[in-house]
Amino acid sequence: LALKGSNYAGLLERHRIHTKNVEHVVDSLRNERIEVRLVKRREYNEETVRWADAVISAGGDGTMLLAASKVFDKFKPVIGVNTDPERSEGHLCLPMRYTHSFPEALQKLYRGEFRWQWRQRIRLYLEGTGINPTPVDLHEQQLSQEQHSRAHINERFQDQRSDISDPHLLPVRALNEVFIGESLSSRYAVCSVLFRENFKSCKPSFKFSLHRASYYEISVDDGPWEKQKSSGLNVCTGTGSKAWSYNINKVANQAVEEILKIAKKHGSLNMPLNMELVQKVTNDYNESLLYSPEEPKMFFSIREPIVNRVFSSSRQRGFSSKVCVRSRCWDACMVVDGGTSFEFNDGAIASIMINTEDALCTVLLEE
Amino acid sequence: LALKGSNYAGLLERHRIHTKNVEHVVDSLRNERIEVRLVKRREYNEETVRWADAVISAGGDGTMLLAASKVFDKFKPVIGVNTDPERSEGHLCLPMRYTHSFPEALQKLYRGEFRWQWRQRIRLYLEGTGINPTPVDLHEQQLSQEQHSRAHINERFQDQRSDISDPHLLPVRALNEVFIGESLSSRYAVCSVLFRENFKSCKPSFKFSLHRASYYEISVDDGPWEKQKSSGLNVCTGTGSKAWSYNINKVANQAVEEILKIAKKHGSLNMPLNMELVQKVTNDYNESLLYSPEEPKMFFSIREPIVNRVFSSSRQRGFSSKVCVRSRCWDACMVVDGGTSFEFNDGAIASIMINTEDALCTVLLEE
Repeated sequence: LALKGSNYAGLLERHRIHTKNVEHVVDSLRNERIEVRLVKRREYNEETVRWADAVISAGGDGTMLLAASKVFDKFKPVIGVNTDPERSEGHLCLPMRYTHSFPEALQKLYRGEFRWQWRQRIRLYLEGTGINPTPVDLHEQQLSQEQHSRAHINERFQDQRSDISDPHLLPVRALNEVFIGESLSSRYAVCSVLFRENFKSCKPSFKFSLHRASYYEISVDDGPWEKQKSSGLNVCTGTGSKAWSYNINKVANQAVEEILKIAKKHGSLNMPLNMELVQKVTNDYNESLLYSPEEPKMFFSIREPIVNRVFSSSRQRGFSSKVCVRSRCWDACMVVDGGTSFEFNDGAIASIMINTEDALCTVLLEE
Repeated sequence: LALKGSNYAGLLERHRIHTKNVEHVVDSLRNERIEVRLVKRREYNEETVRWADAVISAGGDGTMLLAASKVFDKFKPVIGVNTDPERSEGHLCLPMRYTHSFPEALQKLYRGEFRWQWRQRIRLYLEGTGINPTPVDLHEQQLSQEQHSRAHINERFQDQRSDISDPHLLPVRALNEVFIGESLSSRYAVCSVLFRENFKSCKPSFKFSLHRASYYEISVDDGPWEKQKSSGLNVCTGTGSKAWSYNINKVANQAVEEILKIAKKHGSLNMPLNMELVQKVTNDYNESLLYSPEEPKMFFSIREPIVNRVFSSSRQRGFSSKVCVRSRCWDACMVVDGGTSFEFNDGAIASIMINTEDALCTVLLEE
């Protein structure tokens, strides 16, 4: 890492801080005679979740997403402690101060000085021809090429591909969002795998272009099907409205200022165009993109829609209860919370919706 | 393809149309006793370009980008014929009607009923530690896993990595844009290659998440360095201002309407908010994103900037003569015209600018 120019000393320090913070949480729990099983990412599974009365994630928002990804019981509380304040905003975690005084959080829980918060999540049904409902974990680390090859060849020869057109309910619930888009740049993308001896990992030596338009058809709330071409489709929850969706849709001061200048000119408006007004309008617009994690509604946004002779989008974003997508993609995927992905190619149809049974139970401590 | 549900008959038909259109162009040229070498993508190289007095691309805009990518002589005309009207907008090609009446175009050229058009292009310098100036062709098709493995291992063992910090001028000129961003989702992304016997191609069986924020520092026109985190940085030419850059930056009616509604409320404006005004403002704003291919200036835009405690962006987009970027990325690349990519990881510094010597010579026929 140091040879690459990375800040190895910095990484080591953050790891030290994280480890110390984890110990603090574990000690606080054991001091209250609470039985604690401390597991790392790769040991965390549904059996561990079943054993636990509650799950605490110690890391950043990404770790919280991982923790939530194995919890399907709406009465199993999942609590996040941000042990990595420099890297993570901690939107999904308890306020920062409990990181160093976790007993305070425990006391509030004992005294009932909190309320339950149910974060709504998205479920996915997949149907159609040639679909593959096998999830791929994008965070899998450091398996050797050989181990992975064997695993995948076994999967394929067990013929996971289904010709049954009954909708499969996929074994995931999106806490932030589902993103649908093309993953590779070229129809015949070739990847050669180079075994890096120092890392014991494989990295493809080809970089894939990030820009390949996704072609699909979309129907919102059982409305008419519309052909679209874009850089992808994002469907989020209230929780996810603060995440990637926010970055896709937010507007910059600079753009609002230009829009208001043009409007003033065209509308012959007597409008004092000061930075205060521009800032207010920008803030209001951006705030309108956010909503409560507990609202059972989804927000869809089309990223960089391509509008030309063939394709159009009547609405670039909006709220909905149900979104159906038919893939016309060559090599696309549905990515859940940036961590799990499913093939989503020509012939596949996804139905995306919220079911309140899938909500994730968390806590909001009184302040 | 048919088993996947793809429209095989449709693909075959488009191929037939394309082949017929290519024959028309070649015949028209040979009828004028012009010597023609017809080459496919994989046979097209700098030797062929040197042999030719002019280069004609027969395909869509993508083929034109490929044709231009091997031309570095500002006096070697490159002309595009759109043989694939259903799939390509043909922005870079001659107007559609010449596809079926190419002799008409030839006559105009003979009679001087045209003007030369020089499309400005972007050049790239790469310097810093551990850089790898080896370009990767993202359109490489159908090499076997074995051939590619061998090729890349040979490259690596020849130690292409340079510790010299002198800037390397990369052997590419961007006709549309340079895009900088992270390519893989996970630090230890693993890719297992599955040899598909029917396709004779390799497709990674892992899909890579499309969302991994890119971390870099940017200096515009030798201004102060600014740390940024975003979904990537796009720097385009006038030609490229109609392409991906346009899709990144254009604003939707829907968004303009909401912004004007908010402005009206905040500014207590007496403004009749009708769809006509909204449409005018939207069109004006979007048109301001476009500029002439012949202008020697670049337009940079930051895609989905992440603004929080650590990162900010003073300007999300703008014109510039020079953009410098220091990578703080783990596994990023610079992608030129969606077709060629270079590693761009922590330690690398890119300088991006237009030099009028790099312009591409094309023609504008009189109408």
